[in-house]
Amino acid sequence: MTTQQVATNVTWHDGEVTRADRGQLLKQKGATIWFTGLSGSGKSTVAVALEKVLHQRGHLAYRLDGDNIRLGINKNLGFSAEDRTENIRRIGEIAKLFVDTSVIVLSSFVSPYRADRDVVRALHAEAGMDFIEVYVEVPLEEAEKRDPKGLYKKARAGLIKNFTGISDPYEAPEAAELVLHTAEMTLEAEVETLLKMLTERGIVHAA
Amino acid sequence: MTTQQVATNVTWHDGEVTRADRGQLLKQKGATIWFTGLSGSGKSTVAVALEKVLHQRGHLAYRLDGDNIRLGINKNLGFSAEDRTENIRRIGEIAKLFVDTSVIVLSSFVSPYRADRDVVRALHAEAGMDFIEVYVEVPLEEAEKRDPKGLYKKARAGLIKNFTGISDPYEAPEAAELVLHTAEMTLEAEVETLLKMLTERGIVHAA
Repeated sequence: MTTQQVATNVTWHDGEVTRADRGQLLKQKGATIWFTGLSGSGKSTVAVALEKVLHQRGHLAYRLDGDNIRLGINKNLGFSAEDRTENIRRIGEIAKLFVDTSVIVLSSFVSPYRADRDVVRALHAEAGMDFIEVYVEVPLEEAEKRDPKGLYKKARAGLIKNFTGISDPYEAPEAAELVLHTAEMTLEAEVETLLKMLTERGIVHAA
Repeated sequence: MTTQQVATNVTWHDGEVTRADRGQLLKQKGATIWFTGLSGSGKSTVAVALEKVLHQRGHLAYRLDGDNIRLGINKNLGFSAEDRTENIRRIGEIAKLFVDTSVIVLSSFVSPYRADRDVVRALHAEAGMDFIEVYVEVPLEEAEKRDPKGLYKKARAGLIKNFTGISDPYEAPEAAELVLHTAEMTLEAEVETLLKMLTERGIVHAA
């Protein structure tokens, strides 16, 4: 599938209400917090925990989740390299729409390819939007030991093809804004670290 | 392109913060207001005006616009019947994500095919979400006279193929929640009618 612009005769429509106006209404700044890491690394767990704390503090956050997205907008995509790239591209564009709404996006996808993540980073940069890559790091052995969905077991048995870490590569970030070593941190410490960063960047107000 | 579920081994993750929680935070109920009608009918104009009034009242709304979406997530789609269908399907799924965030979505797309709009309606109904179809009606002659982007002229000259109303059909809604006859109404009256409906449905609070 091409990612070239197909439709012509289209122009960008600016509304009268701006991103900044919506940010003022919500008393926050929209941003994409992009959690990447192996299946079982703890991406969803930390995203769910962060979402809860943000909500308790009166902030509007929304989780985009690999599985949820794949049951909806990206239901027509599989796990080939081409489909993975299109999957991440679409999610990046959706995240941008949410950031434009001034929502804090918590996206948790394996997103194994560096080039794909960098596309999303560039999309945000072009639009002057915050993109915060969080590498949710765990040794493969540990992820495989956790195996919360039993997927590694299936992958090892050859029942799942193109499985990241087993039969498909995971390209670790080289310059993530934050690395969380989930095998060595409590969930509370992870959330605290994230909140500190979001406050320092002016995305949320101090508690 | 298929719309069958391709990925297996995926399950829906419920967060601890619900749609209702977010609605309580925003003091509103998420909903999709789906404006449909010919190019030049006034869809974007009324969406922009409604967005402004909603914001002034402290509500969080976001416009999804045909042109904007086609420059981002749907940049790899054209105007064939198949691409139009995929275009609307993706927009419907994005709208659902926003409704789940409790945002009021104002989508303005020609969305000429009844079956495509009904797919989006069904997607919302399945999820217990409000979908409000607003037929922005104008006689073709009037739309062609307005021709704000000079597109009808190009279509008549054969420079644009698959142009709705000229070389591609527009299937008018048969049971829209609201019809706005923009050739006979002021913009103020259109916005007032919409606000009244949104209040009656409990999407926004009374002014």
